[in-house]
Amino acid sequence: MTVNASPFRRIGLIAKPEDPRLPQVLGQLLDLLQARGLEVIADPAAAAALQGALPSMPLEQLGHACDLAVVMGGDGTLLATGRRLADDDIPLVGVNLGRLGFLVDISPTEARDALAAILDGRYKEDRRCLLSAQVGEQAPVLALNDVVFHKWNTARMIEFETWIDGRFVDSQRSDGIIISTPTGSTAYALSGGGPLLEPSLDAIALVPISPHRLSNRPIVVHGDAVIEIRVSPRTDPDQVRITCDGQEGIAPGAEDTLLVRKHNHSVRLFHPADHDHFQLLRAKLGWGD
Amino acid sequence: MTVNASPFRRIGLIAKPEDPRLPQVLGQLLDLLQARGLEVIADPAAAAALQGALPSMPLEQLGHACDLAVVMGGDGTLLATGRRLADDDIPLVGVNLGRLGFLVDISPTEARDALAAILDGRYKEDRRCLLSAQVGEQAPVLALNDVVFHKWNTARMIEFETWIDGRFVDSQRSDGIIISTPTGSTAYALSGGGPLLEPSLDAIALVPISPHRLSNRPIVVHGDAVIEIRVSPRTDPDQVRITCDGQEGIAPGAEDTLLVRKHNHSVRLFHPADHDHFQLLRAKLGWGD
Amino acid sequence: MTVNASPFRRIGLIAKPEDPRLPQVLGQLLDLLQARGLEVIADPAAAAALQGALPSMPLEQLGHACDLAVVMGGDGTLLATGRRLADDDIPLVGVNLGRLGFLVDISPTEARDALAAILDGRYKEDRRCLLSAQVGEQAPVLALNDVVFHKWNTARMIEFETWIDGRFVDSQRSDGIIISTPTGSTAYALSGGGPLLEPSLDAIALVPISPHRLSNRPIVVHGDAVIEIRVSPRTDPDQVRITCDGQEGIAPGAEDTLLVRKHNHSVRLFHPADHDHFQLLRAKLGWGD
Amino acid sequence: MTVNASPFRRIGLIAKPEDPRLPQVLGQLLDLLQARGLEVIADPAAAAALQGALPSMPLEQLGHACDLAVVMGGDGTLLATGRRLADDDIPLVGVNLGRLGFLVDISPTEARDALAAILDGRYKEDRRCLLSAQVGEQAPVLALNDVVFHKWNTARMIEFETWIDGRFVDSQRSDGIIISTPTGSTAYALSGGGPLLEPSLDAIALVPISPHRLSNRPIVVHGDAVIEIRVSPRTDPDQVRITCDGQEGIAPGAEDTLLVRKHNHSVRLFHPADHDHFQLLRAKLGWGD
Repeated sequence: MTVNASPFRRIGLIAKPEDPRLPQVLGQLLDLLQARGLEVIADPAAAAALQGALPSMPLEQLGHACDLAVVMGGDGTLLATGRRLADDDIPLVGVNLGRLGFLVDISPTEARDALAAILDGRYKEDRRCLLSAQVGEQAPVLALNDVVFHKWNTARMIEFETWIDGRFVDSQRSDGIIISTPTGSTAYALSGGGPLLEPSLDAIALVPISPHRLSNRPIVVHGDAVIEIRVSPRTDPDQVRITCDGQEGIAPGAEDTLLVRKHNHSVRLFHPADHDHFQLLRAKLGWGD
Repeated sequence: MTVNASPFRRIGLIAKPEDPRLPQVLGQLLDLLQARGLEVIADPAAAAALQGALPSMPLEQLGHACDLAVVMGGDGTLLATGRRLADDDIPLVGVNLGRLGFLVDISPTEARDALAAILDGRYKEDRRCLLSAQVGEQAPVLALNDVVFHKWNTARMIEFETWIDGRFVDSQRSDGIIISTPTGSTAYALSGGGPLLEPSLDAIALVPISPHRLSNRPIVVHGDAVIEIRVSPRTDPDQVRITCDGQEGIAPGAEDTLLVRKHNHSVRLFHPADHDHFQLLRAKLGWGD
Repeated sequence: MTVNASPFRRIGLIAKPEDPRLPQVLGQLLDLLQARGLEVIADPAAAAALQGALPSMPLEQLGHACDLAVVMGGDGTLLATGRRLADDDIPLVGVNLGRLGFLVDISPTEARDALAAILDGRYKEDRRCLLSAQVGEQAPVLALNDVVFHKWNTARMIEFETWIDGRFVDSQRSDGIIISTPTGSTAYALSGGGPLLEPSLDAIALVPISPHRLSNRPIVVHGDAVIEIRVSPRTDPDQVRITCDGQEGIAPGAEDTLLVRKHNHSVRLFHPADHDHFQLLRAKLGWGD
Repeated sequence: MTVNASPFRRIGLIAKPEDPRLPQVLGQLLDLLQARGLEVIADPAAAAALQGALPSMPLEQLGHACDLAVVMGGDGTLLATGRRLADDDIPLVGVNLGRLGFLVDISPTEARDALAAILDGRYKEDRRCLLSAQVGEQAPVLALNDVVFHKWNTARMIEFETWIDGRFVDSQRSDGIIISTPTGSTAYALSGGGPLLEPSLDAIALVPISPHRLSNRPIVVHGDAVIEIRVSPRTDPDQVRITCDGQEGIAPGAEDTLLVRKHNHSVRLFHPADHDHFQLLRAKLGWGD
């Protein structure tokens, strides 16, 4: 019997619901975890895939209860988990179910060995900042990739002002603006013409979407910047939405400002010890020719 | 008394409704036209600004009845007039009401002299092609700038296929695609990263909007190309709209294809004889330093 | 014995010198051509690879003497052949030696069958325009991809004026400007941010290289445009070179203007009958995911 | 007589040589400084413009001897001064001679009042990092804007590898790469498609110049990154130069690596207390419409 010398005693299993490749991956990981005598708790999607073979908890409870969680799915699954468990400081290990992601970087075939090594303490920790978006008096919403202020229900450009740390930046007409973390710099911000930001950089990128003025270019500011976006009086606030990580949009009221700043907790990702962000970029962006 | 040797006997006056600078410009032009003994017909907006001093007709009737029309407003006024009178072959002279446009290139202060010269036969003719957009079995809609196939009521990218002349081009995920005439190449297509097309070029530009794949670049095809855009089964057609010249969007049905091709009539613009498109580009794009 | 009903009686073989894959491809094609009783003439590089088994001629003579030429190599080999045989109207068939090109689109493994079909009259003809670049009084130089006016021997930007059809376009500071055919639109012009032009489009693209002014964007003009580039007095002409298809640069004199216009002959490419330019774009630009 | 309560007792005057507007600006500043009883030392260019009315020193000596220096000229003058006085920690005040710069942000007409306020202690300090570029065993060279690794004496792309902190990033074919400070992000890097970086951001941008691969995008890394660029064996090192702030290029040897990292001293800029970087961006990039 293996003695578990690692600090991880209770492991959470979090899954993208109903993925057909899930049972096999889950089975392998469960073997490993049980062989090591660790306690294992499934989220509802993982529990369903295992047909009740494990104790299950809602995600938020699982986040409190566990020392480490394995997230199986696509980048979207990890984004959602990261947002929901943001304040728990729980390390997340991302396993993809077939297609390499920027966040779920462990393939199913190497998942068992990779997790074993991580449990043995051989891992690379990678903290990813989150953004908090507040619209008027509404409750703040978190984003691990990006907060997008964009046109809605209209084919016309919207007009808005950008302020950073209380200083006026500009008034622009465009399809909107992407406020992105380094994590989000490989997602929508990249399509909008933004730069790639190293994940550990303490910075936020503001990327205008199809701006009318050709000199409106992406801006990178420090991670503690307080960003405000205000709808111009010439734009109907009904034609604006704010979207965090591509989820359902928030509608601003007539006088509402969007306030974006770094959240006070970050997401802890654990990668295999030989993890290399540039290798991931090469694979995902086709740099390896 | 001036003898009018020009082929223009009946002049239409078309205006952007309720613009405060309108009465003065209209007054000057009317003096000139009446001094020359020409018949003048106002569209409803021009008639209103003149408080009924002129016979008036709805725009389409005016297009049939007149030999030449002066359009007073912004580029949007001329775009709308061009689309609505597309099949009448009537020359249009664009007068801006304060801010130089790409299409309304005559300033209010030079309008009287410019029109006098045009009536004397000193002008440069400039034919601008229109696009015809057909969605499924719906009636075709015209565009002088662009036909935009874009996401609607969603923050997520849409997926669609592009076909040109019956040949498959690609399947892309993006915020949409701009199908632009040379006229439209200085409008939304430019914000989307498209090239400037010389107005007389017989060509159509296809400009992807924030495409997920970085190698999806603007494509310029010949003016007779037949372009088809088809929503992918992975995208809900309710999350797609087709918009012509920024006007209200057309909703496609589940199996509908968007078919875009050059319209069989073009818009005739008359410019002062010294008109220079590159001078206009310099002024509008700030190339004069 | 096969009766050769095709109009091609004398076939030229043109090769990239010293490519190790050449003998095998040449051998296969030679078998086919000799079985059909066609006369075959090799250029010096092909003759060397065949160790003198064929009559040989310098390239220009071969261009006069043959009805069809097979060009084996990379896109560079075909570019050079196209420029040198531009005035001969000889159809060219491009066979790559291992790596798909935009111009050498037939792979070695399908070369024999593809050539057989072409000899049988089953082909798609594709005419590609050339540009003629003249610097001051020097002899004009041809380009099938692009004429590039660029900085030389300096790290600083150069300043120059662009004129089209005798009209001033702008004065710009940049690293230079790429004047590209549709053929060249997939080459350097694409790296510079230019659009893809359909090969049959009668148009020329002007793509500024890293321009200082952000509103200097690619411009597409009609194929008959006469383009002039003039060094500004603020730039030392020694810090400028003109390069055609990436070949050795031409140095302008102090007062020299670069004059670029379409050459009066085009290059005739013969492709297999099922050739599809968009398929080639998908393969080369990674659009097939 | 004014009592000088400020910590600045010895003021250096540094000028762009032979600028015709220099004597007037210098005269005004000299009046102010002498009225305050401050010691004033001119660099050779300022001394020449004042026709010997002041004691003069070579720039480096002046940097040691003074507590504050006023730099009169364009951004290039301040870049050169910043590099040469980098290790002296001397605050620099930038006065432009007619055209607003990103670094010389005080206009001649407001120079006297602005300097008076700064001497009174009302200023905003702004530290700008420098890069140190080392090629092989050669002595390091400083750059305040950018270190550019670029093709030289060739029209063809070069091929090179990028390494960051000892990790391989990619091998790319392009015209070169711009390694830029936040200060340089409004200069050449912007023309190359790079993002605007807030001046205080501790980061370095790597901007590929016209890369062959369309997915090679600007990358922003942390300020302590150690960047290495290595010429590929397929590129002749004679066709490569390294240029710092647009000055004369450094030629690498056959096996040489370019090593770029942040210099251990930064440049201290003093601005008027109401200085606003975004206002400067609006003015210089035309964001104010």
